[in-house]
Amino acid sequence: MKERISALLKRTPSTEIVTAEGWVRTKRDSKNVCFLEVNDGSCLKGLQVVIDKDTLADQNILSAITTGCSVICKGPIVESAGGDQAVEMASSDITLVGECPVDTYPLQKKRHTIEYLREISHLRARTNMFGAVARVRNTLSYAVHQFFQERGFAYVNTPIISASDAEGAGEQFLVTTLDLHNIPKTEEGKIDYSKDFFGREAFLTVSGQLEGETYAMALKNIYTFGPTFRAENSNTKRHLAEFWMVEPEMAFCELDGNMEVAESFLKYLFKTVLEKCPEDMAFFSKFVEAGMEQTLQHIVETPFAHMTYTEAVKELERHNELFEFPVAWGSDLQSEHEKFLTEVVCKRPVIVTDYPKEIKAFYMRLNADEKTVRGMDVLVPRLGEIIGGSEREANLDTLIARMQQLKLDPKDYWWYLDLRRFGSVPHAGFGLGFERAVQYITGMGNIRDVIPYPRAPKLADF
Amino acid sequence: MKERISALLKRTPSTEIVTAEGWVRTKRDSKNVCFLEVNDGSCLKGLQVVIDKDTLADQNILSAITTGCSVICKGPIVESAGGDQAVEMASSDITLVGECPVDTYPLQKKRHTIEYLREISHLRARTNMFGAVARVRNTLSYAVHQFFQERGFAYVNTPIISASDAEGAGEQFLVTTLDLHNIPKTEEGKIDYSKDFFGREAFLTVSGQLEGETYAMALKNIYTFGPTFRAENSNTKRHLAEFWMVEPEMAFCELDGNMEVAESFLKYLFKTVLEKCPEDMAFFSKFVEAGMEQTLQHIVETPFAHMTYTEAVKELERHNELFEFPVAWGSDLQSEHEKFLTEVVCKRPVIVTDYPKEIKAFYMRLNADEKTVRGMDVLVPRLGEIIGGSEREANLDTLIARMQQLKLDPKDYWWYLDLRRFGSVPHAGFGLGFERAVQYITGMGNIRDVIPYPRAPKLADF
Repeated sequence: MKERISALLKRTPSTEIVTAEGWVRTKRDSKNVCFLEVNDGSCLKGLQVVIDKDTLADQNILSAITTGCSVICKGPIVESAGGDQAVEMASSDITLVGECPVDTYPLQKKRHTIEYLREISHLRARTNMFGAVARVRNTLSYAVHQFFQERGFAYVNTPIISASDAEGAGEQFLVTTLDLHNIPKTEEGKIDYSKDFFGREAFLTVSGQLEGETYAMALKNIYTFGPTFRAENSNTKRHLAEFWMVEPEMAFCELDGNMEVAESFLKYLFKTVLEKCPEDMAFFSKFVEAGMEQTLQHIVETPFAHMTYTEAVKELERHNELFEFPVAWGSDLQSEHEKFLTEVVCKRPVIVTDYPKEIKAFYMRLNADEKTVRGMDVLVPRLGEIIGGSEREANLDTLIARMQQLKLDPKDYWWYLDLRRFGSVPHAGFGLGFERAVQYITGMGNIRDVIPYPRAPKLADF
Repeated sequence: MKERISALLKRTPSTEIVTAEGWVRTKRDSKNVCFLEVNDGSCLKGLQVVIDKDTLADQNILSAITTGCSVICKGPIVESAGGDQAVEMASSDITLVGECPVDTYPLQKKRHTIEYLREISHLRARTNMFGAVARVRNTLSYAVHQFFQERGFAYVNTPIISASDAEGAGEQFLVTTLDLHNIPKTEEGKIDYSKDFFGREAFLTVSGQLEGETYAMALKNIYTFGPTFRAENSNTKRHLAEFWMVEPEMAFCELDGNMEVAESFLKYLFKTVLEKCPEDMAFFSKFVEAGMEQTLQHIVETPFAHMTYTEAVKELERHNELFEFPVAWGSDLQSEHEKFLTEVVCKRPVIVTDYPKEIKAFYMRLNADEKTVRGMDVLVPRLGEIIGGSEREANLDTLIARMQQLKLDPKDYWWYLDLRRFGSVPHAGFGLGFERAVQYITGMGNIRDVIPYPRAPKLADF
C-alpha cells in the first residue's frame, strides 16, 4: 500500500518520487507557485505540496482544484523553505480525482460552529478537530484491547438484545417486529409478545455486566467493550442514548484487586494517548481545553488516593457552604462533591469505596456493617466519576435477600443466581463509559462530538 | 496478579510454592491420594493437583470438593509421574472457596448434548468445548484489531440505532419507547413517530458500511467491528438475528486493492489462530471437524485464485448435472456452487468478481458493460462465501440512476450521495460476518454455539 501522509512527513528529503493521496484542505496561489495542503486523515497537519506552475503539463487543473477535492500528487519530498513544516512535496504531477464545488460544499475554509458541524456529521471528520477526535478515539479503543489482552483477559461479546434489566432501572428501548398498526393482544387484553420476533419482550442492553459475570466464572478474567443504551430523556452535554462501555470482570478478585486494575487501566489509557497522539493532544490543549495534557500526565504519574464514602462525607460536610447541594451521610455524591474531593482534598485521583447500599445497585457485596456495600467510584480532576465498579455479592442468600428488599424477582435472575450456587467465588469488576473517557481526554464540551453519529432524544440522523 | 494455570503448566519443576485458583473439573480419589483437575479458562487442559491425604490438615475438605466447585491450591510444581501432563502440583494446602452441590449442578462430569448446553449458556463456557470456542473467538477478535491497526486503519464506531437501511432489504428491528398500549396516531391515522424517543422511526443497523464510507472519505482507511441485526425469520444453523461484523473501507482503493486486503486479512486471522490456539485447534480437529487445521494452514500458504462471475458460471454450467440448483448466467451462486468452485475447480480459495448487477446491492460500482458490478465474494473450501465486498460506485449520476432503478429514494441517502459530490474518490470495502468466521475455524455445526448468548427467532434467553 502507498505511504500515508503521516509517513511522508517523516521522510528525509531525497530525489525519490513518492505519491501523496488525499483531500485538499487549503490552496494558496501566487503568480508562479501554488501551495496545496493535502490531508488524508493520518495526522492533523497535512502535507504541503508546492507546485511550480511553469512545470505543470495541464495548466487548467489548478483552477479546478478547490478546498475539499481529492487529489493524487507525485514528486520528491524536499526540505521546506518556510512555515511550520520540516519537509514538503515539490510536485509537477497532480491528478484531480474528485471535484468539490465551491458554491455547494458545506465545509468551506472558514471556521464553522460545532453545532453546524454536528448537522453535517458525515463530513465533519474532514475538519482538524473531528479528525483529531477520531484518531484519539481510535487510539483509545485499541489501548483498551491491548491493556486487557496483555493481561490475559478474554474479550467477550455479551448480548445487545436482552430480556434482562441489569440495573433494574427500566429505562430501556423496546426491540420489536410487531406491526404497530395491529398489535396482537392476549385474551386478557395484554400485548401478546409471544407473537413478537423473540417470543417475549426484548430490550436493548443497558450493561453487559451480568452476562459478563457468567463468563468470568469460567474464564476468570474477561472484558466487554460494546454498545449499551439508555432511553433516558436527558438532553445534556454528558448523556447519549447509545454509547460504548468497557466492562472488565475478574473472578478470585476482591475490591482491592479491582481498584488496582482500574488504576492501572486508566493510567495505561492516558499514557498511550499522550504517547501516540501528541500532535492531536497539543491541538486539544491549545484550542479546546487548556492544560489537559498536564492533567493527564499528572494522573499517569500519581498513585491514586483512597477513602471510604463515610470518610469522604466527613470531609465534604466541613465545606458544605461551598456546595449547591449540601452533603449528609446517605446522600449520593454530585459532580461538585466529586470534583472537590479529587481537586481540593486529595489533589489527585481518588477512589471512594463502601457506599451506602441504598444508593448503589443490588449486586454489590454487602459489608459486615450491613449498611454499606463494596462499591467504588474512581474520581478524577476536572470531571469527577470516570469509573464505577464494585465487588459483587457472591453469597446466594445475601443476594436473594437484597433483591427481595428491592422488589426484584429472583426468578428473573435464575441464571445470575446460579453463579452463586455453583462454584461461587469473590469477583469484582467495573465500567468505563467510553465516550465519557474520550470527552475527558479531549476536553470536548459536548459528548455528542466524540462519537461519529450521536443518538439522543429526537436525534437519530444518518 | 497471580499466575494463570496456562502459565503454571509451563513452569519448570521447583520447590517454590505457587498458587492455583480455579474450578474443579474432575476429582479422582484413591486410598492415599486425591487428584483434582483445576481449570481457570486460560487453557483447555487443567492443572493436575495431587493431594497426599496424610499431609492434609483438614481431612473433611476433600469430601466437600466436587465437580464445579471453586478452589485455591498451594504447592510446588513438580514433574508429573504419569498421564498426559509434563508437570503437576503437589499440594497439601487446599481452600474450598465455593461449593457446588452434586445433586443440582447442571454440568455433571458426563458428556452433555450441545442442545442441552445451549439451554445453560450461562454455564457452558465451563466445558472444554465452549471454553475453547471462547478462547478462539477472543484470539480472533484481537487479531482483527491487530491486523487493521498495524496497517493504519482507524477503528470507527458506526451507529447501532439507525434511520437508514444500508441494504435496502427492510428486515430490520424497530427500536421504540412508544407505549404499545396507546400508540400515538397522526390525523391521517398513521403512527406518530414524532412522539417516539428519536422523533422518527428508528431501527437496529444491518450494516455500518454507509456510515463507514463517510469516515473513509476523511481518514482514508477505516474499519468497523460491531453488532449488526437481521429480523429474518431464519431458523438455520448459519443465521443469527444479532451478529458481529467486520467492515473495512478504503478510499483511493479499487477492486484490486480490496482483494489484496481481503486475502491478507483472512490469512492473518487463520495464521494467528493456528499459532496462538494450537491446543484448542487440535481439540476441534479431533472432536468437531477433522482436518480443519490443515484446511486453514493450506489457505494461509496458498495464493488465492481469481475469476469473474461470468467465468465461474461457464465452469459451473459444464457440471450442472451435479447441482441441486443448475446455474445459468444471472442466477445467484448457491453454497453448492461456491464450494465446487473453490474445492473442485480451483482447489484453493477463489475470489469471484463482477457479478450481474441484479443480484448485488445498489452501491456497487457499475462496470463499463453496464451489466455487471465490481462486487467480489471470497470463497473458501468447506464453506463457500466467507467475505463479500465491492468497489463502491463513486460517480454521483450513476449512483442516483441505480437507486432510481431500484426504487430507492435518493433523498433518503442525501448524506451518502454527498460523498460523491464533494471530493469523491474510488473506494472499496468488504464485510466479514464474525460468527461465520468463528464457526468456520472451529468447525462448530451451529452458529448459535460460537456466540455467548445467541439471538434468533423465539430466542432471547439470558
